[in-house]
Amino acid sequence: MAETPRPDEDDLMLAELPAGEGARPDDRIDDERMDEENTLKPGYIRAIQDGLDAGDKQAVYELVEPLHPADIADLLELLSRDERHELAAAITDLMSSEVVAELNDYVREDMMESLPAASVALIAEQLDTDDAVQLIEDLDEDDQQAILAELDAEDRIAIETALGYPEETAGRLMSRDFVAVPEHMTVGQLIDFLRDGHELPEDFFEIFVVDAGHHPVGTCQLSWILRTPRAIALGDVMKRDQTLIPAMLDQEEVALMFQKYGLISAAVIDDSGRLVGQMTVDDVVHIISEEAGEDTLLLSGAGEGDINEPIRDAYSARVRWLVANLGTALVASLIIAAFGAAIEQLVALAVLMPIVASIGGNAGTQTMAVTVRAIATNQLTRSNTRRILWREMRVGMLNGATIALLVGAATAVIFGPTLGVVIALAMVINVFVAGMAGVLVPVAFERLDQDPAVASSVFVTMITDSMGFFAFLGLAVLSGIAG
Amino acid sequence: MAETPRPDEDDLMLAELPAGEGARPDDRIDDERMDEENTLKPGYIRAIQDGLDAGDKQAVYELVEPLHPADIADLLELLSRDERHELAAAITDLMSSEVVAELNDYVREDMMESLPAASVALIAEQLDTDDAVQLIEDLDEDDQQAILAELDAEDRIAIETALGYPEETAGRLMSRDFVAVPEHMTVGQLIDFLRDGHELPEDFFEIFVVDAGHHPVGTCQLSWILRTPRAIALGDVMKRDQTLIPAMLDQEEVALMFQKYGLISAAVIDDSGRLVGQMTVDDVVHIISEEAGEDTLLLSGAGEGDINEPIRDAYSARVRWLVANLGTALVASLIIAAFGAAIEQLVALAVLMPIVASIGGNAGTQTMAVTVRAIATNQLTRSNTRRILWREMRVGMLNGATIALLVGAATAVIFGPTLGVVIALAMVINVFVAGMAGVLVPVAFERLDQDPAVASSVFVTMITDSMGFFAFLGLAVLSGIAG
Repeated sequence: MAETPRPDEDDLMLAELPAGEGARPDDRIDDERMDEENTLKPGYIRAIQDGLDAGDKQAVYELVEPLHPADIADLLELLSRDERHELAAAITDLMSSEVVAELNDYVREDMMESLPAASVALIAEQLDTDDAVQLIEDLDEDDQQAILAELDAEDRIAIETALGYPEETAGRLMSRDFVAVPEHMTVGQLIDFLRDGHELPEDFFEIFVVDAGHHPVGTCQLSWILRTPRAIALGDVMKRDQTLIPAMLDQEEVALMFQKYGLISAAVIDDSGRLVGQMTVDDVVHIISEEAGEDTLLLSGAGEGDINEPIRDAYSARVRWLVANLGTALVASLIIAAFGAAIEQLVALAVLMPIVASIGGNAGTQTMAVTVRAIATNQLTRSNTRRILWREMRVGMLNGATIALLVGAATAVIFGPTLGVVIALAMVINVFVAGMAGVLVPVAFERLDQDPAVASSVFVTMITDSMGFFAFLGLAVLSGIAG
Repeated sequence: MAETPRPDEDDLMLAELPAGEGARPDDRIDDERMDEENTLKPGYIRAIQDGLDAGDKQAVYELVEPLHPADIADLLELLSRDERHELAAAITDLMSSEVVAELNDYVREDMMESLPAASVALIAEQLDTDDAVQLIEDLDEDDQQAILAELDAEDRIAIETALGYPEETAGRLMSRDFVAVPEHMTVGQLIDFLRDGHELPEDFFEIFVVDAGHHPVGTCQLSWILRTPRAIALGDVMKRDQTLIPAMLDQEEVALMFQKYGLISAAVIDDSGRLVGQMTVDDVVHIISEEAGEDTLLLSGAGEGDINEPIRDAYSARVRWLVANLGTALVASLIIAAFGAAIEQLVALAVLMPIVASIGGNAGTQTMAVTVRAIATNQLTRSNTRRILWREMRVGMLNGATIALLVGAATAVIFGPTLGVVIALAMVINVFVAGMAGVLVPVAFERLDQDPAVASSVFVTMITDSMGFFAFLGLAVLSGIAG
């Protein structure tokens, strides 16, 4: 195991310093501006807001100047819309392309729309193609054209090519900037070639080895090259088996590949197998957290659910699901209405029925969340669906029995044994059904090539509500205590 | 913009191949075994299951042999517990440390428990410390000791040091294997040093430059070194401003730092600022998706929510929240009970009341999900809480008004205008309150240093249920149509 302190490290331990001495504070965690969670302190933000209110651009500039671009982006997001534009005006030469690239999509879009096409084009030219594409892909057609017109031919073509790929595919997200060399090149020739200072990517993590037709034949991690003598040919250093990403592959699948194979970067190929770009993990991490976080929001029916989303968008995204939920609630109401007579006769039914429905809904949501995550991470496939369904049915039975005992006993004491038995049975049935629905509904959507996170909740809730009211009121009538 | 095809690339375009020719299928997406989502095909799995049933180890071995270790891990996870152990026995020499490292925690734990300590120790010795730690940290104390006893001193010390740090901290997760060299070293000396073939990490992405006390003073991306002449000192190549990760930092914060600053690897320092390890992005991507996915499960009250979690664990994790939910449902029932007379008099109230509660609950969940995500991604801080609250209150008013109109009109038609007005008002109130609760409850938990994803749902649901029944039934009584 290569884990223990290595000789070369020990050699460096020239002098043992007493603990505490010589500790270096990290510039990225500085205590005046950042808290321990590495977010900007409220006091610091307030100082900037005061500066903006006072119109003291100089003071504001000095406050913001030491920040990392990613933190300037955070700062802009934390401010209100108006403050944002004031700040941008106050720190124009700090508004680097890195800052723009780090901005939340909605905030970036809003800020770009307020700029003339020429200025946006100027920013786009500073950015890597993938960031430049992000910058303009959300703008409306006219703005896009206006900006593209301002760009020089090379950049325009690069961006237009990227925009030619569907959104959220590798082709749209990849960087067109990578190092590709022929197999016969030696390590020494490669190093000389790199030192010759050709126009290279700022950072790169692997060297792609390609054939005459520009098809990838292998890849070399930079660390392998650094440890290999000059005379060796790349063909003898490279790994031939590499993960190639089709340009049309969806970003979610790209992210799963990077996770599964622990990739740092990977070659993107067009449908003729030619190397056309690379994806690097620093872009993929954003996709991973986006895709994983998305489910939380979709399951709740909150759409994009970004706090920077314009209110009208948030409204239309959410009200849609509330209306859908209204439909499911209506079904439940109809079932209750059918038992109106029983309720009139025994109002305890009206008092207790929400408990059965609510617990069932909760149990269904639990199973649904587990199922949706398992599908999203490719853990749940056709191969193990039956096993997982059976697993959830057993969990459902255990949960149902436990809750039924509690509710049944309490109800029996307060409203008498019959109603106690009725609610206990209804609870077992509903929690069990909830467990099945929690698996089957998302799986069904997946099989229909629908995103299981989007509409599963509505259906699961409808099933658990209706079943809850129906089982409880129905059993009450059967038991003869009402209706 | 450095994006356009570069001369060195063009030079390689010796011959343009007609599209389609020479395309190389990726070994990782092979069509017999993997589907387009890069998961193992059910038919392939079935073939392996048949082989296991038939006891034909040879056939099984040949089927599995071509798989990437990560895919063998997936395969094991897709099989049932018994099949897993049969398969492991059939492919012993394919069960490499990479496979074990890629296994789901629960599956790994289960498989390790069935092995003698000596064999687990043998596997641990193959693994990097961070993976070895993962392997044994979940085992119970005795097994851990038994395995540690089997390890040679070096490995044991490394693992025990790691276990000395709290779970989910950088110190526990970091790799102790990195390259650190002194500032005065030149690029040439470094390359020679690396070529001397000291025991080096298999892959590394940056060189840490340290002082005599082993404190980081700067960092060099390998790509910078490759393009720099031999004579230049590392001190002139390195970036002095680097992100240093305190060994005690929680993994969630580590993940956010990697995302925010687009890191590939970063130095981990102890509390005396000394370089003690490094974290690389390939480990962090797992944390990112884990942390982001976690919220989906926690919000639903499904605990860990892993489909490989033992049933008893899943049961105890979930039933806890169902019981809590029982408490909140009880509160709602008490409110209904208080209006028993009104319901007896006008059963329509019992029919309609679940609608008010259910829509309110749904609206609350939407806002809550948005808030929890925003807190988890450091987008929502004390600096903008008030602004976001106001935003959600406005969305709540819009949603409430819309639904109120629909429900009110329909109710007015069926049950008369008074009840229509009553339910419309109740709906506006409840959806508005839901919006406020959806922000304030998670924020309150965050301020109390509790994970907002864990208990927010229960409280938000309680508020929306109770408020829904109370507003609707209360207004009905006030309106004089019942009670």
